[in-house]
Amino acid sequence: MNWTHRISKMLPIFGAAGLLAVSGSALAGDNFHSKYAPMFEPLPAIAPIPGNNSLTPAKVELGKMLFFEPRISASGVISCATCHNPALGWSDRIPRATGHDGQVGDRNTPTVLNSGFFGAQFWDGRAATLEEQALGPIEAGIEMNMPLEQAIARLKEFDEYKKAFAAAFGGNGERQITEANVAKALASFQRTLNTPNSPFDRYLQGDLSALTDQQKRGMAAFADNGCLACHSGPALTDSNFHAIKVPGSTDVGRFAVTGDEADRHRFKTPTLRNVAVTYPYFNNGGTATLGEAVQVMGREMLGREFNKRTVDDIVAFLHSLTGEMPDVSIPALP
Amino acid sequence: MNWTHRISKMLPIFGAAGLLAVSGSALAGDNFHSKYAPMFEPLPAIAPIPGNNSLTPAKVELGKMLFFEPRISASGVISCATCHNPALGWSDRIPRATGHDGQVGDRNTPTVLNSGFFGAQFWDGRAATLEEQALGPIEAGIEMNMPLEQAIARLKEFDEYKKAFAAAFGGNGERQITEANVAKALASFQRTLNTPNSPFDRYLQGDLSALTDQQKRGMAAFADNGCLACHSGPALTDSNFHAIKVPGSTDVGRFAVTGDEADRHRFKTPTLRNVAVTYPYFNNGGTATLGEAVQVMGREMLGREFNKRTVDDIVAFLHSLTGEMPDVSIPALP
Repeated sequence: MNWTHRISKMLPIFGAAGLLAVSGSALAGDNFHSKYAPMFEPLPAIAPIPGNNSLTPAKVELGKMLFFEPRISASGVISCATCHNPALGWSDRIPRATGHDGQVGDRNTPTVLNSGFFGAQFWDGRAATLEEQALGPIEAGIEMNMPLEQAIARLKEFDEYKKAFAAAFGGNGERQITEANVAKALASFQRTLNTPNSPFDRYLQGDLSALTDQQKRGMAAFADNGCLACHSGPALTDSNFHAIKVPGSTDVGRFAVTGDEADRHRFKTPTLRNVAVTYPYFNNGGTATLGEAVQVMGREMLGREFNKRTVDDIVAFLHSLTGEMPDVSIPALP
Repeated sequence: MNWTHRISKMLPIFGAAGLLAVSGSALAGDNFHSKYAPMFEPLPAIAPIPGNNSLTPAKVELGKMLFFEPRISASGVISCATCHNPALGWSDRIPRATGHDGQVGDRNTPTVLNSGFFGAQFWDGRAATLEEQALGPIEAGIEMNMPLEQAIARLKEFDEYKKAFAAAFGGNGERQITEANVAKALASFQRTLNTPNSPFDRYLQGDLSALTDQQKRGMAAFADNGCLACHSGPALTDSNFHAIKVPGSTDVGRFAVTGDEADRHRFKTPTLRNVAVTYPYFNNGGTATLGEAVQVMGREMLGREFNKRTVDDIVAFLHSLTGEMPDVSIPALP
């Protein structure tokens, strides 16, 4: 049984792809809004906060310092912000991540924007939470390549970090510089990196003029063709794993984590929030444009060929998912 | 003839090192200010503008985009801001610059802060102006490693850059994307990266309480011991070249540029502006602390051993040279 057949069962009944015709006057009206808006969720300004890591300004500020800190990498020049670059949609806009000594990884860098809304982290979900995710890239040999013990020792060299950890976690600052607290601070900072108030969100909240007619047609095509089966919820991801083979990829995906044959070629549904500014696409970053990505998704996941007008409409809709970028000033590091 | 002898001729008559004694009441008064303040120059907010590159907001904005643009590097992840990191005093706080594929260069990354006030660029002065300097690191094999032709071609892929070059230079945007204009825009941005209003500047401008007594003693020791012979002018550099051998360095310095034996081991006097936040020190970045650096300079350039009190006083004074950091938001790149 291939994935296309499985997903078809989850979908509402729909017409042949690309044959949807919604007139301009219908798009402008309340009926269209009341039909489609309830299928989607606007993005809250702050991601859900876990019970064991309260969100405080001191943790967020410390997390920001750590996010921009290159001295917890072996080379001294790579920080989280190198690949999750605020200038590039908090990603890197190259096909596959490039880290320590120019090594190129296997996968495309996911944006950290809105990552607090995800129920799983990394393309293969090998971390469930931002806290579990945060330390991986520091010690990964092809990313920052620094053993965590060394990273902790380096942070302890700075009085400013001792103060910042004391402010964030109380007690003795030096003793609070631990792997667990580095993870908590980084996760707290990331929970503030959200992009609400996109044209799409404003439309959902009742501003009928926030989307163009083409974007509304794309929104309808997105819903009617079943994209919502996986790209659902406030971040337009179900945080679940689905088998997909995109052009050029031989990556086994979640199989490498679980060893379960059912997980072969399964990847976490990526968020579509800000997808227009987080190119290139898919686990291998091998697809350069949104138009190509929409066609691949139609073919691979839905078993259909979208016509040009439908592709263009969906691409226009996807552009409406670009929200307000977080206003993050560059911290002055010690 | 060694350098210590040469520099001694340029110095005013001074007492034995470390034996200067200025009383607290003398430090507080107008007499001290009127004696020492005129030897120094406060930093203007904008660096001198050359006649052939007027400073405009459009050029500065474009220069900022280019400064943060990693896609004009071969790896796609190294930008000017990688080594001239705004979080780290617009430098990198590692001994020697680390660039393409983790290659480590021979010299310490100079801060770009206040670089518009320098009469020569790079440690060896191989560029006279910011415009001449700007393109070097893009094509340097151990830095960004991208041939300029490729960098220009890559920028031309983006409509946003076409618009930004048209806004900055007029006419047809695509045709304005040239090496010369990339250099002009980067230089324009750098001319805005200045750090006025340090405690030292406020003191020079009449706020007698802007410096502590220790900093005033350090200012007097700095002047009386002859440091001003080379560290003069608003950026505390004469932009001239002086022979120096710092611990661990075998670098021939300006000799490699001119082939002139007289230039062997000569380096450009580095700015002392923000020196407290631009560690480590010297051409090889081999000296970690300001205290060590002051001792080395006393020994190498002035032929004297500063006592501990003088070192501490000068270090306190050097801390007063940290100014207001430029408020630069991270640009959203195309």
